Amino acid sequence: MTSPSAPSNTVFFDFVCPYAWRGLELAQVLRKAGEQGFKLRHFSLVQGNHADNAGQQEPAWWLTDQPGNEGNSFQQSSLLAFLAAGAAARQGEEMHWAFTLALFRAVHEDKKSLDEAAIMEAANTADLDMDQFAADRADEAALRTSLRTDLAEAAEIGIFGTPTFILPGGEAAYYRFENLTRELDTARQWWKLYGEVLNSGAGIATVKRAKNRPAKKT
Amino acid sequence: MTSPSAPSNTVFFDFVCPYAWRGLELAQVLRKAGEQGFKLRHFSLVQGNHADNAGQQEPAWWLTDQPGNEGNSFQQSSLLAFLAAGAAARQGEEMHWAFTLALFRAVHEDKKSLDEAAIMEAANTADLDMDQFAADRADEAALRTSLRTDLAEAAEIGIFGTPTFILPGGEAAYYRFENLTRELDTARQWWKLYGEVLNSGAGIATVKRAKNRPAKKT
Repeated sequence: MTSPSAPSNTVFFDFVCPYAWRGLELAQVLRKAGEQGFKLRHFSLVQGNHADNAGQQEPAWWLTDQPGNEGNSFQQSSLLAFLAAGAAARQGEEMHWAFTLALFRAVHEDKKSLDEAAIMEAANTADLDMDQFAADRADEAALRTSLRTDLAEAAEIGIFGTPTFILPGGEAAYYRFENLTRELDTARQWWKLYGEVLNSGAGIATVKRAKNRPAKKT
Repeated sequence: MTSPSAPSNTVFFDFVCPYAWRGLELAQVLRKAGEQGFKLRHFSLVQGNHADNAGQQEPAWWLTDQPGNEGNSFQQSSLLAFLAAGAAARQGEEMHWAFTLALFRAVHEDKKSLDEAAIMEAANTADLDMDQFAADRADEAALRTSLRTDLAEAAEIGIFGTPTFILPGGEAAYYRFENLTRELDTARQWWKLYGEVLNSGAGIATVKRAKNRPAKKT
């Protein structure tokens, strides 16, 4: 769907994060219009916020080393979703996006639990080849290895929240916003503003609202 | 110097912070051009980051309750500078700005220590009435009360870093950037971009670089 000539960005996300959902919806609008490309990568908030990893660039605690049935619900559901998305990715970029968005919408728009039922429904919505999906999910060791690559690169970049977008020039920042758009002109404006902040001659490191003056939801 | 019709913003800052220095230089360019007004207010980073205040909206530990010769060097120098700036403010808005900028430049541009010598030099540079300045500094209880008002309002707003600018509409955010400008067109652009982020329909809460992809200094 993405034009081969579109700029190639990257987005790191965690399925548990509603800001990541809105970020991916924005990215999808620009992808569909052929204006921007976005490579999907995974970052684990549970891993990033884990006490054993505090203050360390090289994580001591890895989500990929955990059994699927251990840890709190964020840990379990995040790992389950990442591995499922890795399996969906084997059916190509479009299927990867369709599955990822379907799962995000189920959880953050339709308020379903991030669990096996939501994953199977998202796979159906995305129109995955279900036999292939099941076979690929069973190849769990390889899916964990692939996820580990994403988590290691995220740690190297110093990602701390999602969505974090990386521009073709390597500029990378957490971009947190409250509102949803699926409208092209609006998506263009919101994406352009992000690029302007990162590319400003001011060398902007952070714009962050004061805690008790939050951004407005519309 | 500020035009009475210029929009009235507020900036919270701490003298120990180099980002606050650049923020105030930006504000001064716009003030001098008569395009924006900025009310100077104090926020204490030592107080904001104090362990006793973690997770509490109403601070338990107040800089204004501390003796001037206690705590680490950031605490002592910050309190000393705030009280001196409060005394300078009694000679009017222009003197307040002149003293504040002279002290910021001494510390962050000329790399001097934030101490009594720097304060006296800044007072001279700002051309304060030195007898009046000495008399006003001696009125320490009143200066502490006035500082307390700033710190209490900052806590109420949920300010956590400096500079934090508050727009006339009440939008407030930490704006951290690496580069210095004293050029009007550039200052206009950097200020406009900040306003665009806060007023975007996206409801932007945060744009923050990944730790290992810092903003570029030029």
